[in-house]
Formats: sequence, C-alpha cells, structure tokens
Amino acid sequence: MAVFIEPRILKGFRDFLPSQEIARRNLLEKIEGSFRLYGFLPIDTPALEYSEILLGKGGGETEKQIYRFKDHGDRDVALRFDLTVPFARFLAEHRDALVFPFKRYHIAKVWRGENTQRGRYREFTQCDFDTIGSDSADADFEILIMMRNTLLAISGGGVIIHLNHRGIFNRFLSRLGILDRSVDILRAVDKLAKIGRDAERELLSESVGESSASEILSYIEISGSFNEKLSAMTEAAGQGPETERLKQIGKFIQDTGIEDSVVLDPSITRGLDYYTGVVFESFLADLPSIGSVCSGGRYDNLVGLYSADQRAALCGVGASIGIDRLIAGLEALGRLEEEKSYAKTAVAWVSPDAGGACQAIADKLRDEGIPCEVFLNEEKLTKQFQLSEKKGLSWLIIPNSEKPLESPLTLRDLSKRENREGLGIEKVIEAIKNNAGKL
Amino acid sequence: MAVFIEPRILKGFRDFLPSQEIARRNLLEKIEGSFRLYGFLPIDTPALEYSEILLGKGGGETEKQIYRFKDHGDRDVALRFDLTVPFARFLAEHRDALVFPFKRYHIAKVWRGENTQRGRYREFTQCDFDTIGSDSADADFEILIMMRNTLLAISGGGVIIHLNHRGIFNRFLSRLGILDRSVDILRAVDKLAKIGRDAERELLSESVGESSASEILSYIEISGSFNEKLSAMTEAAGQGPETERLKQIGKFIQDTGIEDSVVLDPSITRGLDYYTGVVFESFLADLPSIGSVCSGGRYDNLVGLYSADQRAALCGVGASIGIDRLIAGLEALGRLEEEKSYAKTAVAWVSPDAGGACQAIADKLRDEGIPCEVFLNEEKLTKQFQLSEKKGLSWLIIPNSEKPLESPLTLRDLSKRENREGLGIEKVIEAIKNNAGKL
Repeated sequence: MAVFIEPRILKGFRDFLPSQEIARRNLLEKIEGSFRLYGFLPIDTPALEYSEILLGKGGGETEKQIYRFKDHGDRDVALRFDLTVPFARFLAEHRDALVFPFKRYHIAKVWRGENTQRGRYREFTQCDFDTIGSDSADADFEILIMMRNTLLAISGGGVIIHLNHRGIFNRFLSRLGILDRSVDILRAVDKLAKIGRDAERELLSESVGESSASEILSYIEISGSFNEKLSAMTEAAGQGPETERLKQIGKFIQDTGIEDSVVLDPSITRGLDYYTGVVFESFLADLPSIGSVCSGGRYDNLVGLYSADQRAALCGVGASIGIDRLIAGLEALGRLEEEKSYAKTAVAWVSPDAGGACQAIADKLRDEGIPCEVFLNEEKLTKQFQLSEKKGLSWLIIPNSEKPLESPLTLRDLSKRENREGLGIEKVIEAIKNNAGKL
Repeated sequence: MAVFIEPRILKGFRDFLPSQEIARRNLLEKIEGSFRLYGFLPIDTPALEYSEILLGKGGGETEKQIYRFKDHGDRDVALRFDLTVPFARFLAEHRDALVFPFKRYHIAKVWRGENTQRGRYREFTQCDFDTIGSDSADADFEILIMMRNTLLAISGGGVIIHLNHRGIFNRFLSRLGILDRSVDILRAVDKLAKIGRDAERELLSESVGESSASEILSYIEISGSFNEKLSAMTEAAGQGPETERLKQIGKFIQDTGIEDSVVLDPSITRGLDYYTGVVFESFLADLPSIGSVCSGGRYDNLVGLYSADQRAALCGVGASIGIDRLIAGLEALGRLEEEKSYAKTAVAWVSPDAGGACQAIADKLRDEGIPCEVFLNEEKLTKQFQLSEKKGLSWLIIPNSEKPLESPLTLRDLSKRENREGLGIEKVIEAIKNNAGKL
C-alpha cells in the first residue's frame, strides 16, 4: 500500500507561485541592475558556516534565533542569519585578493528561527551593499545616493531617507554626563515612533532622570531645514568631526539636487547595531508607517573578530534593502506588478505531427528576443483560446495543421479576439513587436 | 583582550570572489533568459523542509547525505538535497492554483553532505526545468530543444544530446526474460563509459549470465543513423508505444534541423533515477569526457507520494543543468569569460569637496545604462590610473578639481593611456558608447 505524506511547509517559510516569483524577480533584478550601475561587485558565500564564525559576537538573541546543528562530521554548523557576518569572515579570508576600497553587493537568503509575526519570516532575502576601506564622506554619500536611486527605481513613488550620525548623539550624551547609559538610551530612543512621546519620556526618565530625559527629547525632536537642524545639533552636542562629516554630506546632497529625498533626523540611531558613524533609514513617501525599507550606516572595523592585527582594521559603510517589507509596501500601495508569465505569445497545437514545426516557428520569435510558448497537448482551438487567456497571453500563433512550416500563419489578438490570416513569420514578428509597448 | 576567530569555511563549501561570481551570474542569467524565452515560469520553495517530505522515498543514500536536524520547535527538518522533491510537494500543495501543462524553472542551491571529490561540492546550484501535465512527444521534444538551445547559448561551441527511452530497454530486458534483474543491469550499464567494455561484460555476466550479457552489450552498442539505430532497437525489443514515441521525436528533430545535436544512444539509462520514458544526457562537443552537463527525462507521477488519489497523477518531463560541471568544462576549454567588474568606467577623485559633483557626473552615465564607479579616496591621479587598471576599467573621467560640475571633463582611455580634454558630458557618453563594442 502506498504511503501518503501530507504536503506542507514549515511555519515562517514560503512557496512562491509563478506570479509572485516573477514580481520578486523583477524587483530583485532592478535592484541588482542599480547596484551594478554604481560599479558594485557581486560575491557569494556559503549558506552554512561554522557556528563559531557566525556567533562570534556571542549575542544571546542571535544564539536563540540561529538554525544550528551538528553535521555528519560532528562539526558545529549553522545557517547564516545575515549577510554581514559572513562578509566579515570573507574579507578577513580574502583581503589579499581584493582591491580596496572594495564595493560589494550580496543578494541572498538568510534564516532566523524567530517567532513569526506579521511580515516576519524565518527565511528571507537580503540585498546588502557596502563599501569597505574608505572612511570618506564620499563613501557615506555614495551609499546614500545609491539607496535613493535604487529605491526610486523600484518604488513607483517618492522615497525619504533619514540620516543621522551616531557619533553626534554619543557626544551629546557625553556632554550630559550619561554616555555610560547609552545602551538603555539607544534602546529607548529607538522606540519613539512605536510608543509615542509620553511613554518615551517616561521610559527615558526611568533610565536617566527627568531632566536628562527632557534634554534628550528636545534633542531628538530638533526641527527645521537640514542646515538648521545641524546647527542646533552642533549646539547641543558640541563641534566635532561628526558635525563636519554631516556638513560635507549636506553639501553633496545639494550638489546632486537630492534635497527632497533626504532629511536629517536626530532621532534615528539604529538601536544596538554596530554602527559608529552615519546611520540611514529610508521610507516609502506614501507609506512611511510600514517602516524602514532600507537601513544602514558606517562601522569601524568589520573584520576585528577574525583578525588579531588591529592595524588591519577595515572600516566600511553600507545598507541593506528589506525586500519582503518593500514588497508588502508596494502591494499595499497597489504598485506590485504581478505578471502571469514572461511570454505573451504562444504557438497553438494544431496536429500530432506539428510539434517540431511549432518549435521552429517559436524559435524564430525567440531569436528576436520575444518569449514564446508552444502548446503541447491536443486540444480544440476554442479550448486553447481559453487557456491562453488564463495564462495571460496576448497573442496566439496558429500554424496550418497540414503544412505548418510551409503555409502562412494566423495571428490571433487575444484581447480583441481577432484573427489576422495569411501572414509570413516576419509579419507576425513585426505585429508583435509593434504592439509590445501596449501589452 | 580581544578573542580572535580563525576565518575559515566548511569543506565542500565555497566563497565566490567577484570575478568568479560575475562569470557564474553571466551564465545563470543566460540560462534563465533562455528558460524565459520558452515561456517557462519561475517558482521558489524553502531551503528547509520537514525531513519527512524530503526523505519520503526513504532512500538510504539520500538519508546519509542529507543535512537533517531538530529545529527550535523540535521539528525534524532538513535542507533540500535537490529541487525535484520540493517541486513534487509544491505541485501537490498548489495544483489548484496552477495552469496545466505547467512549465516551470527553478534555479537554486541544494545541499548534500557527501564526501567531496574533485568537482563535487556540498553546496551547489541546480537549474531545473520541467513540463508537468503533458505526456505528449511535443513535451519531450520541447525539453530536448530547450536543452540544446540553452547549452548552445552558453557553451561557446557544439553540444551533443544523447537520447534514449527507458521503456524500450525494459521491453528488451523483458524479452530476454531478465526484467526482474533490471536494477542490477541498469546499475551496470550506467558504468560502461567508466569501466570499459571488458569489465562491463564481466559485470553483466555475473548478474545475468554470459549469453544475456552478450545480448545486452550488442544492444547498447547498436550503431548507425538515428533511424537505423531505432530500427535495430525495435527489432531487439519489439514494437511498442516507446518506439513510436522515439520515431515521433526523430521527426521533430528533422523538422527543426537539429540532427547534428542529437544522437540516439541505447546505452544511456540514467541509472536508478525515477525516469520511465525518454531520458537525456548532454555533452560539450569539445569536452565530452567531463560528463553530462544537462540530464533529464520523463517520469510518470511526480506527486504520488503526496497524494492518495491515483487519478490525480501528474506526469512530467524535464532536465537539470549542472552549472558547476559546466563551469569546470568551460574553464578547461578556456571559454569562461572572467570579468573583473560590470563597470568599465570610473570618475576620478579630484578634491574633498567634489564628492557630490562626481556622483552627479556618474549618474548621467548611469541614466544611459552605463555602469560607472566613483573613486572615493584621496589619491594622486597616477595612483588612480594604476588602481583603474587593477580593476580592469577602460575609462577614467577626470573632472576639474575647482569646478567639477561647471568645467569640461577629461576622458582618459586607460588602454591607450591617452587623455582627451575639454569634453562635455554628452561627448564623454558618446565616446564610451561608440567604443563599447571594443571593450
């Protein structure tokens, strides 16, 4: 007796049906195309690594989330939970083979066994891009403008990037004499948008007292233009290289005319992340409530854990696009282009002996770069028309059933339900190419 | 004191440096482009599944190779070891949402903890394409011509596809009265190329006796044209729907004029795989010794394991490109195009204040689809020329250091080491576009 296994997938994991996968691939290809335009280079690393490598920082949260096990050789291994830690290991291992500053992108899946909330998955795709080995404002700004232009290319609307500098906030805390509480404070500030002003004040007061809480609240609510905010922040925190850095980036923003896409925001800190310089968060202008769809910042020494030599430090700046949140946002805005198929044209089934001829006809279109399906099963033409509409096709080419290769073709416009008869293959290709824009 | 962790990766796993990854992506993109031209649709499935799903067939070999463990919820899970089993589960789960015949491709990584030999990895990419829900010769032939045209598009040389039908071989064994030994025989026949004729005869004799061994050897060594072989095979095995199927495919091969790429080969059986109809193997014409770079065939009922209803059987035909072996082959033939970068152009660093202007200049090229890097670190121009050559660039755009946006540009042809001065951005773009073919 046959054993039957219930087909099911793990919670937090997903299948992608063709129309979903086409939409994802269209987005990912645009993102990758944008990364390439900026001269960024692709790399890849293993999905599975030694646990020691991935857990190096020994984070308790990470350890709880990671998929970790013993392999056949009794090695302690784990699935990567982000693309940053493997990249650090990659840099330490291959630095002699790379040209610095090294600009890389990495689009790949990562796994986290965390509790699944709405829009959170246990398997998801990250799109990371980083520049390693440059501590210049130029490098910071390049990541910023890449974020902007990449998101503009895929969002179908405006994009707002929030920019801050971790160092200025630390300098400000230092001035208040509460830098030693920065972990708590960062954690609290990170919650502002979620919990609101009053709860924020309470949370901060508990940690650093009412007076400091007020100062922090005033600081993170500084308003005005880019330069006005920067002046107020400098006044509160004191002058330093961090304010100079933001001033320089402000100039670059003006020189490229992207002021409308960038706001200086003293309230963003990226919580407990490893950033030490500029930090970025970015939002869809028409749906900011969904949260940051691309975040990042500058860090001091990515390879510190894998290199005993402190002189070998490698600083960097980068960001990561959260493709799942972005898709959720575009879907909510009705901007996700779901397509049923790459091919909009098919050749009909016309006789049991025409299978070769139909492929030969389809190949003429494919040679011109036009995707073309061939129907494989014996069906009446009316049934094939229905099938074509179900598949989202625009054109059906109907060869002559007796002499499919030698005789003229019929081209059916599926949306108009009209046939044009007696066409040579060149005329068919011409008709489809001329209408490609309308499809 | 800082803890230092040795940067290393697991045996059988690989990092891909940019030039390797660009070569891989170029190949994968051509493969995917070809799949799309045939109207095949992409899907994706989780890397991790219930072990029960993946091990359904209970294969001992599979069980030894699979990466299997308990997750946080104490579920018995495993990394997929191929794309076929997850696809079967996918079909059983989503069949109501799909249009049949369903043509899908899936390009993704799989994991096997097997012993690593030369050219075998524990993590590797598979490129599968299958048509489900058609048992026609048209469907068999479409996979065949896709294999040919896809491999021709990436191999830079000829491709030979070996074609056979499992059913004819079984009919032949049945006639000899040794069908019950077919597992041993298939295993032995599969080794012919590896062990040679004499060892093959010995191996077969041990299993089915000298007389049958001789008959099998004569059968698998049948020679001649496609039709001559088919006649001899039919004579040995007897007439049946399998010979009719091959005859029909032979006609389609002629109608499309691809005779030079296909040979009928009674010796290929795909060993113990689950195929029941046609089987395919394909070879680089200039390096057949590396083995089949794309194999496949027809199977009866992919979803049997996940569906109690036998009337719900889904037959199919498909193939899989082994990208790692293909890359090894192209490398051995000197045909793997390694590129250092997608960008062949960069804008030089000219002053601390020019970072925005340089991005604005580069964006003009990017808007025209020309990838363009920007140099981010303060360096002398001569140093930047050296860096450009190291990066494999062809052009360096040098803005005026005082007025980078307003003043004319200098364009350096890095291969000729010549500068053209006083150019507007349009002239720069024109010069680069005109020379793109030569790069």
